[in-house]
Amino acid sequence: MRKRIGERTLLFRSEPRVRSAAAIAAKNEGEGAFSGMFDTVLEDDKFGEDSFEKAECRMFRTAALLACQKAGLELSDIHAMLAGDLLNQLITANYAARDLGIPFLGLYGACSTMAESLLLGGVLSDGGYCSPVLCCASSHFSTAERQYRYPLEMGTTAPPTAQRTVTGAGALLLSTQDVPLPVFSHVALTAATIGRVVDLGITDMNNMGAAMAPACCDTILAHLSDTGSDISDYDLVVSGDLGTFGSEMLLDLAKKYGLDLIGRYLDCGASIYLPEQGFSCGGSGAGCSAVVLAAELLNRIERGDVNRMLFLATGALMSPTSGMQGESIPGIAHAVVLERRD
Amino acid sequence: MRKRIGERTLLFRSEPRVRSAAAIAAKNEGEGAFSGMFDTVLEDDKFGEDSFEKAECRMFRTAALLACQKAGLELSDIHAMLAGDLLNQLITANYAARDLGIPFLGLYGACSTMAESLLLGGVLSDGGYCSPVLCCASSHFSTAERQYRYPLEMGTTAPPTAQRTVTGAGALLLSTQDVPLPVFSHVALTAATIGRVVDLGITDMNNMGAAMAPACCDTILAHLSDTGSDISDYDLVVSGDLGTFGSEMLLDLAKKYGLDLIGRYLDCGASIYLPEQGFSCGGSGAGCSAVVLAAELLNRIERGDVNRMLFLATGALMSPTSGMQGESIPGIAHAVVLERRD
Repeated sequence: MRKRIGERTLLFRSEPRVRSAAAIAAKNEGEGAFSGMFDTVLEDDKFGEDSFEKAECRMFRTAALLACQKAGLELSDIHAMLAGDLLNQLITANYAARDLGIPFLGLYGACSTMAESLLLGGVLSDGGYCSPVLCCASSHFSTAERQYRYPLEMGTTAPPTAQRTVTGAGALLLSTQDVPLPVFSHVALTAATIGRVVDLGITDMNNMGAAMAPACCDTILAHLSDTGSDISDYDLVVSGDLGTFGSEMLLDLAKKYGLDLIGRYLDCGASIYLPEQGFSCGGSGAGCSAVVLAAELLNRIERGDVNRMLFLATGALMSPTSGMQGESIPGIAHAVVLERRD
Repeated sequence: MRKRIGERTLLFRSEPRVRSAAAIAAKNEGEGAFSGMFDTVLEDDKFGEDSFEKAECRMFRTAALLACQKAGLELSDIHAMLAGDLLNQLITANYAARDLGIPFLGLYGACSTMAESLLLGGVLSDGGYCSPVLCCASSHFSTAERQYRYPLEMGTTAPPTAQRTVTGAGALLLSTQDVPLPVFSHVALTAATIGRVVDLGITDMNNMGAAMAPACCDTILAHLSDTGSDISDYDLVVSGDLGTFGSEMLLDLAKKYGLDLIGRYLDCGASIYLPEQGFSCGGSGAGCSAVVLAAELLNRIERGDVNRMLFLATGALMSPTSGMQGESIPGIAHAVVLERRD
């Protein structure tokens, strides 16, 4: 049986299941649209550590461990962790992997990390190489601000198109076998589409949604073409963190290609905060789609509210250095299909 | 048939072949121990570009394209590229992937990238998901110096344990099917062992070999235990860039566990330069093991000088930020087995 169809789509015939998940977030996220859905909401952004970077690492480690424990597994049961974050040299995931002591494969896909880790986790588990696997991603407002923009102490005002980096870590446990305490019994990973880097020449670092929307559209089109599906075959199409501007751009772009996403579309970034919180462009960051998926979307599938979801996480692949050298912002989107199975 | 044995080792039963490879390096590397083996040796480190970062990207892109062309393939034949580099946000691999326009999965494993990409490339091709795949890694002395240490213009003197970051990019084309123009006909990828993050508390950023040697030893021991092999089953055990100090440390560590590596061991970093070049601690960087493998080691297998090689690439997973926050340097080593097949 073919495991690859079309140009870029992989089929997971054994349909590995998401057996459990954990999501940790900070106060703003905890008070947002998915209030009450997180496993832990931080009281303060430093999570008892002496730096924001160490706090992010602790958040990541805690989410990974929790996903494992909720399923009734020990860390030693985990065959591999596939994970990444936004920090230079991936220090969040690397130091967390050190503390967890499990086999580890570091990924860098910026905010596309959650989908990239599920894609490769799907290959490893469906292929019979590693199962269970942990797929994780995180971001932290305060570590990202000082690395990508300005130190918080400067009190810089955010421009109107800027999204807020989500402080959060999400972890999903994927397995082809049963686990002692499954949190989910009906969430299967059935396919994935690998992203290509797409760059339409956007150079505004405060409008990353616009830089990522074309990549997102490209992957949706490739996925539908590869699988011979219609957009109406999906109850829900999810993008990671296009934000309000980027989401509008995606809807417009999709429409040009004859795809009507309205009524079946959710952007994690545009959905995570409530309007009254004042983060009008929404959230961003590798942790954004990770926590929305882990805390909310998997439940919608488990309950049967959603039967087939195309989950895309989108990454903006520039660096401050490439920006200063005049480069535009390339984007990528990887997709996975999550389906309800009895 | 089992695809995973022991704790961390994956078996590639279909034995995907390395069909071609390309290696690009700079003048120092071109005049070193593997002189005459590279596809291209840069005349100047900027490779006709206006920044070192763009030069590294061009080098990466050229190597990837060349590996593809040498095999008689078009870029559109490539199912996926798995790749990474040392720069923040992986800008070398990301911008190269944009220019190449092929499906792309970004990896961060610092100097362990070449082995991580072969490991995941092995899973994708052996599993029937993607074939051919390109596995690539690069580094550049001048981009790494200014990112990790000091701007070159400062003229800082390197401490005695410091290795020199190799300016080079390597690309391997892996496929389960025949290709029109195979460069290699006898090099099979038969197994891989996933690394764990190991940290013995080393904090000297100028002695990364010492920080990585324990991870390397850990993965060798896991590989032998998982596969029930003896070290004498391997003609050659290769480490990526432990350098002269780190290599000695590995030999000592291995000896403590009853493994005698002497006579069957090569460190790419310690081997790439000639003594008279004055880089006494050897080379380092994600490109180091990539170009030595692509330019030299694959030929040894093809010719039959080596029948079974355990190739380990080792990564130091800290960042300047984690160092400033008092963290020690965690290391990781992934391993792949390359064997001669008729």
